[in-house]
Amino acid sequence: QKLLLLPGDGIGPEVTAAAAKIAELVAPDIEIGEALVGGASIDQHGVPLTDEVLAQAKASDAVLLGAVGGPKWADAERTKRPEMGLLNLRKGLDVFANLRPAYCFEALVDASTLKRNVVEGLDLMIVRELTSGVYFGEPRGIDSDDKGVRRGYDMSIYTAPEIERVARVAFEIARGRDGRVCSVEKSNVMESGLFWRNEVTALHKAHGDGVELSHMLADACAMELVRQPKQFDVILADNLFGDILSDTAAMLTGSIGMLPSASLGIEGTPGLFEPVHGSAPDIAGQGLANPCAAILSMEMALRWSLARPDAADRVMKAVAHALKAGARTRDLGGDLSTGAMTDAIIDQL
Amino acid sequence: QKLLLLPGDGIGPEVTAAAAKIAELVAPDIEIGEALVGGASIDQHGVPLTDEVLAQAKASDAVLLGAVGGPKWADAERTKRPEMGLLNLRKGLDVFANLRPAYCFEALVDASTLKRNVVEGLDLMIVRELTSGVYFGEPRGIDSDDKGVRRGYDMSIYTAPEIERVARVAFEIARGRDGRVCSVEKSNVMESGLFWRNEVTALHKAHGDGVELSHMLADACAMELVRQPKQFDVILADNLFGDILSDTAAMLTGSIGMLPSASLGIEGTPGLFEPVHGSAPDIAGQGLANPCAAILSMEMALRWSLARPDAADRVMKAVAHALKAGARTRDLGGDLSTGAMTDAIIDQL
Ligand SMILES: CC(C)[C@H](C(=O)O)[C@@H](O)C(=O)O
Ligand SMILES: CC(C)[C@H](C(=O)O)[C@@H](O)C(=O)O
Repeated sequence: QKLLLLPGDGIGPEVTAAAAKIAELVAPDIEIGEALVGGASIDQHGVPLTDEVLAQAKASDAVLLGAVGGPKWADAERTKRPEMGLLNLRKGLDVFANLRPAYCFEALVDASTLKRNVVEGLDLMIVRELTSGVYFGEPRGIDSDDKGVRRGYDMSIYTAPEIERVARVAFEIARGRDGRVCSVEKSNVMESGLFWRNEVTALHKAHGDGVELSHMLADACAMELVRQPKQFDVILADNLFGDILSDTAAMLTGSIGMLPSASLGIEGTPGLFEPVHGSAPDIAGQGLANPCAAILSMEMALRWSLARPDAADRVMKAVAHALKAGARTRDLGGDLSTGAMTDAIIDQL
Repeated sequence: QKLLLLPGDGIGPEVTAAAAKIAELVAPDIEIGEALVGGASIDQHGVPLTDEVLAQAKASDAVLLGAVGGPKWADAERTKRPEMGLLNLRKGLDVFANLRPAYCFEALVDASTLKRNVVEGLDLMIVRELTSGVYFGEPRGIDSDDKGVRRGYDMSIYTAPEIERVARVAFEIARGRDGRVCSVEKSNVMESGLFWRNEVTALHKAHGDGVELSHMLADACAMELVRQPKQFDVILADNLFGDILSDTAAMLTGSIGMLPSASLGIEGTPGLFEPVHGSAPDIAGQGLANPCAAILSMEMALRWSLARPDAADRVMKAVAHALKAGARTRDLGGDLSTGAMTDAIIDQL
């Protein structure tokens, strides 16, 4: 099995190194490679993702990405921005289903800004469409209309097959959980939202055995995530709503530094695994970053793409035990460095 | 001064009646009319907003709308849906700046699902663009492409003048508060977001005296609203992000039943005032609705469109005192009916 590390920018290299260290311990037979993405790739090659690196990613079983972006590249033209490396990678690997679990480790319940009873035992999964919608729709641009009025625009668009394939993943995941999918859109104001809702409903009629489907408007969902997050099992959302709602859900659990994600394509193609957090340039290189999100992304890689559920279980338990034993990085109110936190987890393997 | 009531559907009639009762007491000289909107208008006239009612709204100084929508009309074609009444009214009145304050009444701090220290003293204002963006962009529709693939799409578009006029309102409002505006978009993935960001930045350079401008991505903002909401003073957002973020902000304060909104156009045109909550069909007609959001929307109408800041102050104080004295509807954990809650507020006028 081959794993490709793409450390990227900011705290990316620190946290992927921590995750790699753990992978080497629990699955020493996995072959680990490394390459550039994001700002690091721009500095070296002038583009945020080279064709060679994309080919290398496609030839792997799993890709672990750290984070991309930083002030250094923020004002460059779009094709020269670190984020484009990530978008091109997602599109290139065709990883259309982005799985973002939000669970609250018992030891961290009090790190949440929400009250204990609201988040204790929280365990929801957001399934976000990742390769379409307003992120990629055409036409898009900044120009002037025929009266000379300047404008910026993007097409928010979904086709039936794009909705169907991600909805199937949500149904499948729900079957392995509590069997409930809540599909989110703005069907009251967007045609693409109405289309999304109708397609998901039709698919559920045909292939929804064992799954209870409900629908919620995106604004209501944002509210319910704060009001009563434990009502949800699986949330299915498009690229844009999934982006926003998963950040809200992540924050419920106390620290964005804890949450992993998996992006999956069709069977037999490599998955892309990344922490939900960003490159955090303000703390980069100081050993302050929480490595848990990257380590748990590695856990998802072991489970979903590297066929090593046993190793994944070991990692998950070690993280829970380390937290229970009091190990905390700064974002969790403690003072362990990235390395010390990693060692605390290794001690529990 | 003329005020038009548009009670609408669900709990709309109950809560607007409560607000009207209070307006009659604090500003008896205001002439109050009433008309149909939403499902109520569909049932009577076949459309969610008639030309006559729009003309009547335009000829008023302020419009107070209850809420629109309900299961009865949910599956109708788009032009026959209650929400279109609201969208047509917003567009028809050209109320481009939607002001959504989120403040936490001291007496209600514990009603929030967030911890006391996170929300106590919270006082932020969301300025949401309300008449453009993906809500109205063209082309939009559901059809098949030239290969026969079915799809749904909407154009997310902003012109420079549309951004400029709402940003000016945000700057002006910030000057009367703490002087800080945080503009929110997804400039890292959307051209319209990058355009928004650049236009707001340019406008700030030219007309931003006394205002500190910052920028935040919409996903990060959703997270920060849960992590540390008191960091914000004024949040400026487009129609779609403003919709979602204001619902999150509303929920921080404990109950969506408390929060009002004002939608303003250019000077001298009528403002539209509505509770942030929806029509809540499940509790309609039972006297269970919290009238505070409608009463506080009336407060905003008195302040922003009816030139009666004195009367507005009286209403605001009466609501705070009634809450302090323990008056609570069911959503706040109490058992007062809509009418009893209204009377509790009247007692404090
Ligand atoms: C970095 C950015 C392009 C990305 C996104 O918007 O998808 C990030 O926010 C995420 O959620 O992975
Ligand atoms: C009812 C609906 C069309 C509306 C919107 O999306 O603008 C509502 O959610 C709001 O925020 O006022």
